[in-house]
Amino acid sequence: EINGFGHRVVHGGETFSAPVIINDDVIKCIEECNELAPLHNPANLAGIRACMKALPEVPNVAVFDTAFHQTMPPKAFQYALPYEFYLENHVRRYGFHGTSHKYVTKTFAALINKPKNDVNVVTVHLGNGSSLTCVKNGKCIDTSMGMTPLQGVIMGTRCGDIDPALVVYLMKKRELTPDEIDSLMNKKSGLLGFSGVSSDMRDVESAAKKGNARASLMLEMWSYSIAKYINAYVGILPKTDAVIFTAGIGENAPDLRKIICENCAGLGIKLSENNNNIRGETGCVSADDSKVPVYVIPTNEELQIAQGTSELLMK
Amino acid sequence: EINGFGHRVVHGGETFSAPVIINDDVIKCIEECNELAPLHNPANLAGIRACMKALPEVPNVAVFDTAFHQTMPPKAFQYALPYEFYLENHVRRYGFHGTSHKYVTKTFAALINKPKNDVNVVTVHLGNGSSLTCVKNGKCIDTSMGMTPLQGVIMGTRCGDIDPALVVYLMKKRELTPDEIDSLMNKKSGLLGFSGVSSDMRDVESAAKKGNARASLMLEMWSYSIAKYINAYVGILPKTDAVIFTAGIGENAPDLRKIICENCAGLGIKLSENNNNIRGETGCVSADDSKVPVYVIPTNEELQIAQGTSELLMK
Repeated sequence: EINGFGHRVVHGGETFSAPVIINDDVIKCIEECNELAPLHNPANLAGIRACMKALPEVPNVAVFDTAFHQTMPPKAFQYALPYEFYLENHVRRYGFHGTSHKYVTKTFAALINKPKNDVNVVTVHLGNGSSLTCVKNGKCIDTSMGMTPLQGVIMGTRCGDIDPALVVYLMKKRELTPDEIDSLMNKKSGLLGFSGVSSDMRDVESAAKKGNARASLMLEMWSYSIAKYINAYVGILPKTDAVIFTAGIGENAPDLRKIICENCAGLGIKLSENNNNIRGETGCVSADDSKVPVYVIPTNEELQIAQGTSELLMK
Repeated sequence: EINGFGHRVVHGGETFSAPVIINDDVIKCIEECNELAPLHNPANLAGIRACMKALPEVPNVAVFDTAFHQTMPPKAFQYALPYEFYLENHVRRYGFHGTSHKYVTKTFAALINKPKNDVNVVTVHLGNGSSLTCVKNGKCIDTSMGMTPLQGVIMGTRCGDIDPALVVYLMKKRELTPDEIDSLMNKKSGLLGFSGVSSDMRDVESAAKKGNARASLMLEMWSYSIAKYINAYVGILPKTDAVIFTAGIGENAPDLRKIICENCAGLGIKLSENNNNIRGETGCVSADDSKVPVYVIPTNEELQIAQGTSELLMK
């Protein structure tokens, strides 16, 4: 028996800060966010409509990638652009991977037996796409991705933070159209574009071990870009309960966690070589005298979507 | 009697990491950097040529805004873009305000009687244009401005860091040419564009005090964008001797230093209300129990250029 469908929807704009039972109004709102996530929202809606058609009596719930970040204060989500771009074009930081960041925050709170609204953590989701959040009292107060998933740290094929003037410079120097530079930054940059090896971190690590200098530099750049966000966020929080690594790379790459944390030395973060030697399992990986504890917590977005759906339907 | 002319030159590319006596080869190199600083380098060259013509027997020295940053490691100066952009289009982080960052670093070392190659500091140059550097053992290892002076923190008319995909999004949504979006991000954003009040921080502060909500939010956004870089850099350094505020706003706005440092609480940074009440003078502004000392040191780029010139000519 199926009591409800839970759907991942990438973009909920400023409308949705929690899971919601899908009706015509909700569909209209999701459609209005299509222009903010043109590759994802229409596909998510197709799935929703298919479920509605197949089993019309079963309720459908939308769980948004952006929802967890809707608690960010304006100082964190506004860009210093002309204000009318926010009013007229919905230009602001939204953030993504919210379901994952929420899941590991909640799981960490349970692990240390603290109410989830009391935990201050920096969650580090490292996969093919990567983002970090700064969580204060269980609520997201900042995140590294922006209006789109391009901003932030270096990713598999995305450049992350660059000088915005470079977009214009490269369009002119290399005679690129807006769509071409967009595709270049999203699909041909990051690990793939700079290393020339692959968008898959395992290939880049392996090339670096075999002596490929650009692959080695790539690992340094990637780790450094992540460490700067960890430092920024730990500095914002009055006291940080933990830095939490999650997702494909975050859970499975002890050597990379090590290089990242070496760039957080000023925070007094120290990994334990022994504790850090885990892959895909939950554990504290920092040394006993680390000023900020560091954890690995495997993410589970599907479970979080199912739980969000079931909690809402049982209300 | 004039023994030499010292010239500020904005862009020295990857060629110049120290002041240099100007000859035909140097002029050629400066010309080659014109495309990296089209508004500044040609003007700097005009000044050099005028001095050469007026007093042909007097040597001319070029002091570069980018020189201090040439010690950055590749992990800090490379962007995760296709590697050929670095090779073919000189795309990398250069950084600016180097003369100011160098001056306050050196002045701080003298102040605490430490050899200048032993100091670890974060220098915070806040004027109409603003940038921060991370200085380890007296050498710059990272800086917030990038390929151009647009990257980094929010400034008078510049947006600083934004999602690079926004450049393309705004070009399409608002039908802007590359030159128009470039001008918009450089000249119509930042304090001016978002607050709608002015590019001058004093006007924005005054509007905020009179109850202008967007001006208030602007101060929060501006301070927050600076604090995140301070945190990032203090986290990188194993031990930070001081965070140093300088330039127009950095030296003269105690209230803004306070809001900035409130977002660095996780580093244990605390200002002393009494010590922080200084404008335009050198002093330690942090509380006795601040984990990282905070200083104000007035910058003097002209003096640094004169000293760089005279040191080189006396060799």
